[in-house]
Parts: sequence; structure tokens; C-alpha cells
Amino acid sequence: MFEYFSHKTVVITGAAGFLASHLCDQVLQAGGKVIGVDNYLTGQEKNLAHLTGNPQFRFIKADVSTDPTGYLPTEKIDLILHFASPASPPLYQKYPIETYLVNSWGTHQLLQYLHQHHPESRFLFASTSEIYGDPEQHPQTEAYFGNVNPNGSRSCYDEAKRLGETICGVHTRDLGMDVRMVRIFNTYGPRMNPRDGRVIPQFIMEALENKPLSIQGDGSQTRSYCYVDDLVKGILSLTASENGRGQTVNIGNPEEFTVSQTAQIIWQAIKPNTEPQLIFKDLPKDDPLRRKPDITRAKELLGWRPEISFNQGLQQTIEYFKKLVM
Amino acid sequence: MFEYFSHKTVVITGAAGFLASHLCDQVLQAGGKVIGVDNYLTGQEKNLAHLTGNPQFRFIKADVSTDPTGYLPTEKIDLILHFASPASPPLYQKYPIETYLVNSWGTHQLLQYLHQHHPESRFLFASTSEIYGDPEQHPQTEAYFGNVNPNGSRSCYDEAKRLGETICGVHTRDLGMDVRMVRIFNTYGPRMNPRDGRVIPQFIMEALENKPLSIQGDGSQTRSYCYVDDLVKGILSLTASENGRGQTVNIGNPEEFTVSQTAQIIWQAIKPNTEPQLIFKDLPKDDPLRRKPDITRAKELLGWRPEISFNQGLQQTIEYFKKLVM
Repeated sequence: MFEYFSHKTVVITGAAGFLASHLCDQVLQAGGKVIGVDNYLTGQEKNLAHLTGNPQFRFIKADVSTDPTGYLPTEKIDLILHFASPASPPLYQKYPIETYLVNSWGTHQLLQYLHQHHPESRFLFASTSEIYGDPEQHPQTEAYFGNVNPNGSRSCYDEAKRLGETICGVHTRDLGMDVRMVRIFNTYGPRMNPRDGRVIPQFIMEALENKPLSIQGDGSQTRSYCYVDDLVKGILSLTASENGRGQTVNIGNPEEFTVSQTAQIIWQAIKPNTEPQLIFKDLPKDDPLRRKPDITRAKELLGWRPEISFNQGLQQTIEYFKKLVM
Repeated sequence: MFEYFSHKTVVITGAAGFLASHLCDQVLQAGGKVIGVDNYLTGQEKNLAHLTGNPQFRFIKADVSTDPTGYLPTEKIDLILHFASPASPPLYQKYPIETYLVNSWGTHQLLQYLHQHHPESRFLFASTSEIYGDPEQHPQTEAYFGNVNPNGSRSCYDEAKRLGETICGVHTRDLGMDVRMVRIFNTYGPRMNPRDGRVIPQFIMEALENKPLSIQGDGSQTRSYCYVDDLVKGILSLTASENGRGQTVNIGNPEEFTVSQTAQIIWQAIKPNTEPQLIFKDLPKDDPLRRKPDITRAKELLGWRPEISFNQGLQQTIEYFKKLVM
């Protein structure tokens, strides 16, 4: 399916993160050579442990906000997938400076490096549904400009991803480079950090530890969750596609669940025929009330759509977390 | 009025630009010492020519997107006014990379420099009404999140100013610094670049040269114009005020004119009792249809409001441009 990657040398930044570690696996499986870069600020070494000894995989420990000539090898690079960034609210709020730098200055430096050394190569930027902020349009199409607070506790991530897109746009239009942008919606699956504050790992861990499920707000806010295998396929399709050049594409699963429904589904999957205790907590400031991707562009451009049901995906994810707590 | 500046050492970036050159004058007049920094990318040497030989003024030619330890003197700095940036659409579209860098990476580096060397000192960031994009709220209050295209021909300016604000917010909240942000609305007055594509200098130059006035779109879009002396007073009030710490404040003149009205008023001021010829051109993409500041916060916090009428300000501005063409 992804012949494009065969014999390509692919740099993946943030390689030890949840999403990018899966990208490493899939690019390797498609016959590519992977150079994974991470400084382990929020990435986890164990996410790449299974690749130790794989001759097609190399790991470089480096901060992607520094000059790439200091850490990238001089050989030909065909593609950079730029995924380095803290990505959950508790983590990017812990590292606000690192977060805005890697998405703005880091993106600029990688693109400038590519432009100088391998101007024909491809670049994919991991953008996010967070650039829509607390949206006033449902579902969100790529044409929607968003509703983001420029000076709040989430801005270090949201605004830096927006400027990351701007920087990609400048390199596309003004320097003629082959740049693609994926706006990633909520994703879940094995290798998520169980303590990063996202709703699915949090509910799974609470249920596995037989604790009450803690719900932010009244639980009526909706989320849509994409299983990581679906998401990775979408990202690699956009990267490989002849039609992808210069495109910005939403990748996510449009099926919506309220946070309360999510709690119930996860509890039932782990402790069938019992009822969870629920604890309601304050809704964090600027938390979006609703987020749902319009994936028309992904369907039309790439022929991509999510295929794995929430229940299927959850089973895989719960298995992973069970092994963690055992 | 501005005792605060007396005997203070003030770094003003973008000193050779239209606005910042007026700030240099006013800070000097208030008894401050000014270190002006500019790389003349879009600033004009002649805007500072009158300060040559002033012992309280020093000029450093440097790119504010580079490390400040490379160009700033080691003496105590009490205040940085960060105004460096191309600021009109034709100019920032000519220099998109320089524009997004100076407002993001440049802002970060200046704040980090201040934090390391003079952590108690003050920092003021020149933000802009452009962070509201094509607004859906009129007039715009500081609480409005804006409607900005993250990937259009104006994004290099709009989004970088937004991230500049984010970076200021992080240094305020997480590093406890004294940072203030001014959102500057359309301003006019002497020392504007006559060829930078803004509507007032363009109409004045066309009228002085007896040419037809060229109007973008149908001329029904509105603008509000603040005379530079009013604006500079507002900025210095925010900078000096005990109440300004951590604040973001709109400074501008809420009086609205359509672009067609503006053309008529300027023509009548230069060639009374004659009628201008008008040429209608396409409206540029993402051009805001309406922009008007809500200045309640400036009034309440600073006791500031604009005092100079459009006709008064225009006379001063026309005098300046007359000397340019003679």
C-alpha cells in the first residue's frame, strides 16, 4: 500500500512519542529507513525499545529546536515527518517554552535545512485540531479559521501549531517546497502515556485501578476518537499521495461521544455489568466543548476513512494498559 | 507626564520605523536614554537622522531575530519596546520569513535575554489589530479571539503577532516578568513610508501627484485611523502605568470612515473644491472589511483617549508628504 516509502530515508521527529513511534513502525514495514529524533522531554524510550537492533532504524537523541546541522547526518534525506512536541495539555503547560519553540522555530529550522540541503524532499507537519480552538463551526472543515485564545494556558500549543502551519505555507508558496500538513484530531491506542491527562487513558487507568472515573465539567462535551492505526494510515496516505503537495488535511474519526458516554463505554469494556462511580471536576479554561472533524477532503483526496470501531480500538488499548499496570 | 522614563535606559527595536522613531523622540523628550536597534530591512535611516549627535541616543544596526547578546550593550536595560517588524501588507509579504521570525523567535530571544540579565525590567510588545483578522465582532474588544487565516498571504504577520502575544503571556505567567502588550490599530502621520501600500499615504501621494485615487474593492470597507501623536501617548501610558503589568490593550481611534470617504476627505484637504477621479481595484484576499477598536480598557486603565481630529492629523501628515515630493 505504501510503496512510496520503500528505500526512502525518513527523518521522524518526536519519534519516541505515542503517534510518531507508530509512524516509525509503519515506515519501516513499508521498506523505508528511519532516523528517529527525540530528546525524551515527553517521549518515552520504551516506545522505541522494540526497534533496537533493527538495521533500518537509527535513533538520534537531540532537541529539534536546535540547528539540524548539529544532529542530522549528512546523507540524503527524502522526507521529514515533524512530530516533535509535547501534545497533551498537562505536558505542554509544564513545558510552554519548549512547546512553542519546537512548533515554530523548530519547524522553521527543519524546513530551512531541507531547503538548503535537499530542496526536492518532502516535509509533513503534524498540526492539530487544537488550531480550531473552541470551534463555532461543526464539524470543522479545513477552511474554518478557528476560535483560539492567543494568551491562555493552551496558547503555547495552539498558537505555535498555527504559526507552524504559516511557516509551512511560506515554504510552500515562496520557496516552492513540497510541504503537507495534517490536522490530527483526538487519537488513542497503545503507547499513550497513561498519566498525560487525556480522557481515554485516564478512564482506562481509573477503571483498571477500580477507582471512580473523574469527569471534567458535566461530561456533556463531545469528543471524537480515532484509533491510532487508522490515523497512521491517514497520515502516511497524505505523505505518500501525489495529490498531497501543499495540502492541509483533517485526519480523525467523526463519530462523536460525550465524555460521559466515553466513561460508560470504557467502564463496561473493563468491568462489564457493573456501574462506575463518577466524580465531576471543574472544566479547565478554554477546554473545547465540541470537536468533530469534517473528513470530506481526506476521503476525496486520499480515499481515506477510519475503519476501526471504537469498541475494537478500545480492546487493543485496554490490553496495552493492562500490561502496564500488571 | 512621562516621568517614568527619566534616566531610564530604553531599548527600542525597529527604531527606524514609522512608529518606533516617534517613540524614540518621546522617550528622549521625557528624559530617557534610548538605544535604537534596526537592520533597515523596512525602516528608513532618515527617520532617525535628526537624532544624530544627541548624546542620549545610540543606534545599533542589528537584526532583532539574532541573539541579543551579540548586539546589545552589557549595561543595565530598564525597558525594551519591541517594535521591529515589517508592518504593511506589501512589505511583510515581500519578507514573510523575516516577519514571522522577528515576531516569534525575536520576541522569545529578547524576553529570554531580559529574563537572564535584567529580570526586573519591563517589556512592551507591539501587537496589532491584525490579530483580530477579518473580525466578526464590532468594535473589537481585547477579549475577542479573532478570525485569522493561518495559511494565507497575511499569516506571516498576523499569526506571528499572535504567537508573539503567546510568548509574552508565557513570560508573564510562568517567569513572572513585567510584560505589556499593545494592539495597535491603523495609524498615520509623518514618517510613514509613502510607498508601503497603506491607504492614507497612498491617497495623499496620488492627490499630490494629481493622479486618480485607487480604491481597493468598492470602497465601502471601513477603517479607523489614529494620529501618531495620540498613538504614541497611548503606548507610553501603557508602558509607564502602574496598572499596565500583564495587560493587553487596544490603542487606536474608534472613529470610522469608509475607504471612499477617506479618499474624498484627503482629496478635499489637498485640492479643495475639485473632484477626484477614482479607480476601483480588486480587494486583496483576506483584507478585513471592518476594523474598529473598543478602547474602553485604555480609557479605564490609562485614562487615555485620542484627542486629535482626522482633519488636524491629516494637515500634519500632508505637510510631511509635501516636503517629500518637493
